[in-house]
Amino acid sequence: MDTSYRVAELATQFQLRLHGDGAVRITGVNTLAKATPSQVAFIASASYLPQLAATRAGAVVLDAGHLAACPRPALVAANPHAAFARIAALFEHAAPVVPGIHASAVIAASAEVDATASVGPGCVVGERVRIGAGVVLGPHCILGDDCSVGAGTRLVARVTLVTRVHLGARVLIHPGAVLGADGFGLAFERDHWLKVPQLGGVRVGDDCEIGANTTIDRGALEDTVLEEDVRLDNLIQIAHNVHIGAHTAMAGCAAVAGSARIGRYCMIGGNAGVLGHLELADRVTITAKSLVTHSIREPGEYSSGVPLQDNRHWRRNAARFKHLDEFARRLSAIEKDRNNE
Amino acid sequence: MDTSYRVAELATQFQLRLHGDGAVRITGVNTLAKATPSQVAFIASASYLPQLAATRAGAVVLDAGHLAACPRPALVAANPHAAFARIAALFEHAAPVVPGIHASAVIAASAEVDATASVGPGCVVGERVRIGAGVVLGPHCILGDDCSVGAGTRLVARVTLVTRVHLGARVLIHPGAVLGADGFGLAFERDHWLKVPQLGGVRVGDDCEIGANTTIDRGALEDTVLEEDVRLDNLIQIAHNVHIGAHTAMAGCAAVAGSARIGRYCMIGGNAGVLGHLELADRVTITAKSLVTHSIREPGEYSSGVPLQDNRHWRRNAARFKHLDEFARRLSAIEKDRNNE
Amino acid sequence: MDTSYRVAELATQFQLRLHGDGAVRITGVNTLAKATPSQVAFIASASYLPQLAATRAGAVVLDAGHLAACPRPALVAANPHAAFARIAALFEHAAPVVPGIHASAVIAASAEVDATASVGPGCVVGERVRIGAGVVLGPHCILGDDCSVGAGTRLVARVTLVTRVHLGARVLIHPGAVLGADGFGLAFERDHWLKVPQLGGVRVGDDCEIGANTTIDRGALEDTVLEEDVRLDNLIQIAHNVHIGAHTAMAGCAAVAGSARIGRYCMIGGNAGVLGHLELADRVTITAKSLVTHSIREPGEYSSGVPLQDNRHWRRNAARFKHLDEFARRLSAIEKDRNNE
Repeated sequence: MDTSYRVAELATQFQLRLHGDGAVRITGVNTLAKATPSQVAFIASASYLPQLAATRAGAVVLDAGHLAACPRPALVAANPHAAFARIAALFEHAAPVVPGIHASAVIAASAEVDATASVGPGCVVGERVRIGAGVVLGPHCILGDDCSVGAGTRLVARVTLVTRVHLGARVLIHPGAVLGADGFGLAFERDHWLKVPQLGGVRVGDDCEIGANTTIDRGALEDTVLEEDVRLDNLIQIAHNVHIGAHTAMAGCAAVAGSARIGRYCMIGGNAGVLGHLELADRVTITAKSLVTHSIREPGEYSSGVPLQDNRHWRRNAARFKHLDEFARRLSAIEKDRNNE
Repeated sequence: MDTSYRVAELATQFQLRLHGDGAVRITGVNTLAKATPSQVAFIASASYLPQLAATRAGAVVLDAGHLAACPRPALVAANPHAAFARIAALFEHAAPVVPGIHASAVIAASAEVDATASVGPGCVVGERVRIGAGVVLGPHCILGDDCSVGAGTRLVARVTLVTRVHLGARVLIHPGAVLGADGFGLAFERDHWLKVPQLGGVRVGDDCEIGANTTIDRGALEDTVLEEDVRLDNLIQIAHNVHIGAHTAMAGCAAVAGSARIGRYCMIGGNAGVLGHLELADRVTITAKSLVTHSIREPGEYSSGVPLQDNRHWRRNAARFKHLDEFARRLSAIEKDRNNE
Repeated sequence: MDTSYRVAELATQFQLRLHGDGAVRITGVNTLAKATPSQVAFIASASYLPQLAATRAGAVVLDAGHLAACPRPALVAANPHAAFARIAALFEHAAPVVPGIHASAVIAASAEVDATASVGPGCVVGERVRIGAGVVLGPHCILGDDCSVGAGTRLVARVTLVTRVHLGARVLIHPGAVLGADGFGLAFERDHWLKVPQLGGVRVGDDCEIGANTTIDRGALEDTVLEEDVRLDNLIQIAHNVHIGAHTAMAGCAAVAGSARIGRYCMIGGNAGVLGHLELADRVTITAKSLVTHSIREPGEYSSGVPLQDNRHWRRNAARFKHLDEFARRLSAIEKDRNNE
């Protein structure tokens, strides 16, 4: 029952231009370097041209510009990465989902679980939770009171929705993610901290993906919001009342502080941070490990940080950083002097 | 059975000075911008004066300095944020806690669980664990051998105490937190790593709060310690043998390396780091993403990092950083030359 | 049934040179400052010489160079830290492991669990999983389809292996770790993100240790790989297709982006980052919070970042950073001018 497709069938199905032998049977995908004659590969960028020249792949998905360099059957795509993703999906064999509620799951009396949903072992579902059609709750998911899960959404395993978390359709959440925990709201009173109640929730739009062990706190008064198609990698922290625009993607270990508002189509690099109450326009890119300390009104790429060096040279330069203001004054003094000469 | 209070009642209960109509019925709290005439709002800082001018709130909690600008009934407070937190708490409706041990929980024979405690579905409680009065263990909490949990402490869900973790009273721990895992202790032996046994525990004082997916390792020989009222946000890493003074707060993704000692009333910004074996005095503030590389003996605010710029300008400046030591020498050479002229 | 050893027995067992009274009975280990006459301590570095002078320990593990300064019986070791680790292990009392599968565990029909393995409460084991001899799965571990766990490996509690994760022998994984979640693979298509299937797995070599809440994604086409004896602390992010060489250690909150290749015997500091597709040679050390933005071909220590200062001075210097390129030009202009004079 192995799946296989002729190259010509792939061309037709995904509207790609076939170049070369379309009769080859394809049973999977692989890298240019490792693909066998029954696997499809793709070339992501010109840096892989040596691997393209040597590939044994049954077909290569590529941009028209790389066609001449391809020694094997080719599938020409306007967007090779996307076309390859669609072909690869043909060979992704997920276990079939069996609707129903596992005997070990604990479901509150007032929860509504669609008959086509699958609720795995050890799941705990609270009061007034609504679970839509085709939803998959993998093992050990915990949904606190007053949450809702849209149709076709999948919580892979061990995802926790604390309370008042509302997920759209086709959302995918990876293990260990925690949505809807208390925002970090504290008021200082004389000599100790007083907890500020977190009365809001979390709203996640359709087609979002949330990585393993990522945390998204619920809002203090209003909701924390992810619009549709937001893509969060692992170990990301989204604080209370943050609002993230549609189609924005964040790499691992990024963090956004409370009430920040991120635009649409932004790209936040790994371990980058955004301070609280800031606003980022649409189509802003922040490079890895940068800290955003002021609002950004214009699309574009922004960065902070200093370059990596061997430790001996870095130490010397870093020590001088502490005198940068003094250097600037000394430089100005020399210039002023010279102008007066 | 909706809760409601007259504004005058709130004034009396929280010892606030009422200004304007005290008869208004209040059923909740909200932001200045969104509050209805039956909700209380508050003004946190002067930057919200435009929202204050336009608010429809039933009453506004504010500092006396903002009273003149308030178009609605006001509750004047010395500490508006704290007063608002106390009012908001009236409208936080947590599900009632039902004492008892869920049928699916697995409790070791030698564990002692107070009759007023609530142990949720799937909890696993090890040997010699003691669970105090009114404790709530939400679903799927795992308490390894020799842990203790003080009265009124709540583990929201899916919290793991590995072993020898001792929690004070009224501690709140959010889902995914792991306390008492092995510290990262390794000895290098010829050509490989040798694990160093982690024989200590973790002690957490009264009224601490620990965020989602935060990790606090147990000590190697002595305990890792949080004094009372320490507040940790999400995804924080506290290494073995760290000692954190009372009332210190840390924002998300902060990290403290082994055996560091943090004072009382410190504020550690998001994603800030403290290297191992350092000491921070009381009332030290570290701004976001800074790295503390030496002990700090004086209270005050400390920072590292460079400012965010658009990538094109940042690249130019960052490239020059690698020559900072050389620039300093060239600057000094010019000055010396000029002095000799 | 308390364990005790005479100092002379320890010397023999671990091939240490005894100096002083070997008859003392030892029942545990502790720090120099706190050790009682029936406990062994060790001196890690010369900075602890004051504690050595005052210690009451029953014996001190030390380097020959510190022998003269030791007032108590001594065990001279070539590698005191390693010798102490081995002695400490004698006093680590783990609960005995009881083979067998807990009644509440859910095991797929096609899974093979060795009769000597222990599977704890709430574990969920998927299809075609193989669990080797002496394996311990603590409470609530979830192993998805097609995983394997080598002999003597221990998953402390609440570890998730999503799918196609293969662990070697004697691996130790702490609570909350997630291995084998989808890599963060996205193709941008017109106006939205398209998910790229993640068809690879994760392979972890013998004797690796993986910290609490650390995440290791599975590969897109090939596997994500940790060779043997890799040591990862807590809250680390390893992206898809990363390859980590044997004996490399990473401190908490480090992150490695996709397809990076880290050498053997590397040391990655806390919260350091490595960008995608880079290569690091063997024996590279990266200091805490540094960002690796280019491949490193030579062993050695590398750093980025700027020093911590009090906020007032830091602000002045940081503001000047934005003009560093301009300063460099002005400095060159002065030099050129002077050469022309």
